[in-house]
Amino acid sequence: MTIIEDALKQNATENLKYIAQEERVDINTVFKAVSKGSAVIIQKNNNKPVGIGFPFRTKINVNIGTSTSLANVDKEIEKLKVAEKFGADTISDLSMGGDINVIRKKIIENSTVPITTVPIYQALIDANSVMNISEDLIFKTIETQLKDGISTVVIHSGFSLENLLKMKGKRIMGMVSKGGSYTAAYMINNSIENPFLQNFDTLLDLLYEYDAVLNLGNAMRSGCIHDVTDEFQLSEIKLNSKLAKKANSKGVQVIIESLGGHILAKDLIKYIKLYKKIAKNRPLFVAGPLPTDFAPGYDHIVAAIGGTLAAGFGADYLCAITPAEHLSLPTVDDIKRGLIACRIAAHIGDSFKFGLNYLFKNDLNLSTYRYKKNWKKQFEFSIDPTEPQKKHPINEEICTMCGKHCALSISQKLFNKKL
Amino acid sequence: MTIIEDALKQNATENLKYIAQEERVDINTVFKAVSKGSAVIIQKNNNKPVGIGFPFRTKINVNIGTSTSLANVDKEIEKLKVAEKFGADTISDLSMGGDINVIRKKIIENSTVPITTVPIYQALIDANSVMNISEDLIFKTIETQLKDGISTVVIHSGFSLENLLKMKGKRIMGMVSKGGSYTAAYMINNSIENPFLQNFDTLLDLLYEYDAVLNLGNAMRSGCIHDVTDEFQLSEIKLNSKLAKKANSKGVQVIIESLGGHILAKDLIKYIKLYKKIAKNRPLFVAGPLPTDFAPGYDHIVAAIGGTLAAGFGADYLCAITPAEHLSLPTVDDIKRGLIACRIAAHIGDSFKFGLNYLFKNDLNLSTYRYKKNWKKQFEFSIDPTEPQKKHPINEEICTMCGKHCALSISQKLFNKKL
Repeated sequence: MTIIEDALKQNATENLKYIAQEERVDINTVFKAVSKGSAVIIQKNNNKPVGIGFPFRTKINVNIGTSTSLANVDKEIEKLKVAEKFGADTISDLSMGGDINVIRKKIIENSTVPITTVPIYQALIDANSVMNISEDLIFKTIETQLKDGISTVVIHSGFSLENLLKMKGKRIMGMVSKGGSYTAAYMINNSIENPFLQNFDTLLDLLYEYDAVLNLGNAMRSGCIHDVTDEFQLSEIKLNSKLAKKANSKGVQVIIESLGGHILAKDLIKYIKLYKKIAKNRPLFVAGPLPTDFAPGYDHIVAAIGGTLAAGFGADYLCAITPAEHLSLPTVDDIKRGLIACRIAAHIGDSFKFGLNYLFKNDLNLSTYRYKKNWKKQFEFSIDPTEPQKKHPINEEICTMCGKHCALSISQKLFNKKL
Repeated sequence: MTIIEDALKQNATENLKYIAQEERVDINTVFKAVSKGSAVIIQKNNNKPVGIGFPFRTKINVNIGTSTSLANVDKEIEKLKVAEKFGADTISDLSMGGDINVIRKKIIENSTVPITTVPIYQALIDANSVMNISEDLIFKTIETQLKDGISTVVIHSGFSLENLLKMKGKRIMGMVSKGGSYTAAYMINNSIENPFLQNFDTLLDLLYEYDAVLNLGNAMRSGCIHDVTDEFQLSEIKLNSKLAKKANSKGVQVIIESLGGHILAKDLIKYIKLYKKIAKNRPLFVAGPLPTDFAPGYDHIVAAIGGTLAAGFGADYLCAITPAEHLSLPTVDDIKRGLIACRIAAHIGDSFKFGLNYLFKNDLNLSTYRYKKNWKKQFEFSIDPTEPQKKHPINEEICTMCGKHCALSISQKLFNKKL
């Protein structure tokens, strides 16, 4: 039985009980969320289960992986370790350079969190060119990766060939999704229908067999804020929502990626509400989003703003964006900075969600120690205890900002002692 | 005549005409905004005028200045120059260390934007202790600073002694506003009423004489998200709104600082709407705000999220927060990083505001060059052209993220050429 079938039959398995405890809800809430498809539970390779969706805390994915121009396996393992240390809930291995099979196995071996892949990446590399991809190769790649123990497969199913042909000349940036553009190139070059759409039942059988989660990718996200969320993005949401319903009914859990990329903040809020309606509250995964295009080098900050708005208004799962976005393959430090910014976004986003007050105890602990000027304890409760020490060594009592004339010291005298 | 009197009499002065052009509105809109007090125009020392408030673009203030434990004038001038270079609209000189009079004069001399001060900072230093401050000293300090050419004076008038005495034990963090706590200490130690409240008419006469802007400070902002926006914050908004009305009627322009510091995102949105109602749409200046306490070292990112929400829902004027917030006097680099984050916030915030579409042309230009992979031109339109070059030298064509398999290249072939 798959996890969704357990939830439907109300089997209180270890996985489901773990999630109930972790998310501080009762087991019936977990049964209901998973069986209705508003949440998924990911569990593979003895990793701790991760719950994504309503009514759980917002989760974070971190992308790692090699490219054709930069492929250093050790660096990728270092990125994995940094991502785990700073609180990534899942990792995506997007490797396209080096020995992809070996890299993926190493990442799975070293990881304590579930691993996602986009199989068409490897299919493209193995085919040597987008022209030589075949349906057979795509599905063989998916099966190989599932056998290795990946938890989640990203496929770009949300557009038909007919729809795709309508896109010509309609957008400033075209299609900025890599997996989407590889799929689209394969379709257009061969004048054939979307392979995932055509063989959706075969895909579901495979995913059911491995109890893996299906992530319906966001090929139609816009690449700049002036490519307003258009008919292509909307029809992708509608089509993927239909496919998600079918997958759920066949015992396969689904996450839908949408409304990522570049999108004006006001539109983001509006379309997230629309998404939740169309997709019947299925888990929403967003990359970024980026509500402005003008800050290359600072896109982790732009994404922290977009991610907060997304999570605050209903997104369930954020993909961290590094300062190297649009510029280069991220370094280990970029991964850390992108993840920290994303965690800040998820945390603030969670303050909009119902029932998550327990997450803000750390804020209270930190502030209580801040008031007492106990720097050591204050930093222990912070998101990254080493960073503030660069500007304030824990053994220094005075802060050079206020020097002798500190508002907190005055406040302690005025408002806590008898006046 | 002061600027507000010009607006009331519909005198199309150079200042008012400049603002109309700069903000892309007609002169009657400027007359109305300034005369009703929904916007202020700041102009001093031949600086270009700056308009703050509805319906103008969101503006940014950068705090610089020495402290008792770190006072290097040259560094402060360097901060000023960096702040101007990266788009600060105003600067606050918060110096409390070294020869404050000399530092202020040097900053004014070197600045091309208006300078704000908090006179009670210098009054405290000149008095040598909070115990020795006197009303006479406070007002003499204000006059000295106005004579030097500062454009805006921050005073903390929004609380009475009676109200202050009620605060004891009611908050986790007490009062975190420096100017507020110095004013409060002076009041409680001497058992006297708020000196700014008591002598408000004298203050207005002085400000009128120099046509300076009055900034009613936010003494009652909360220092942690668990100090929920309380009766003290609300009564400060009400009292300052009354004082603002009086000041306007006497020909003095007013900005009100409120809802800064640490505040939950949901509360921020709610209270900004309430503020705009109570304060009859007067310009709202916010420090931060910070919707979580748990990220010391990353507070510029937290403030970018809070600043976006604030500006998006109605704040007019943001105070940049550096990564050194809560830790130390910021370095030149901290100032830059805080300002860039704040500009991103103001820009995204402005996408919520009506009539500001013209601000997003840079985004379009940048994206158009991004699509063409013209790195040089792309970076020219970015918020900080040097930063992205650290990760992608402009003469390198390939981006190491996608290497050979770039979605943009594929898109160009698929969607812009004939299929």
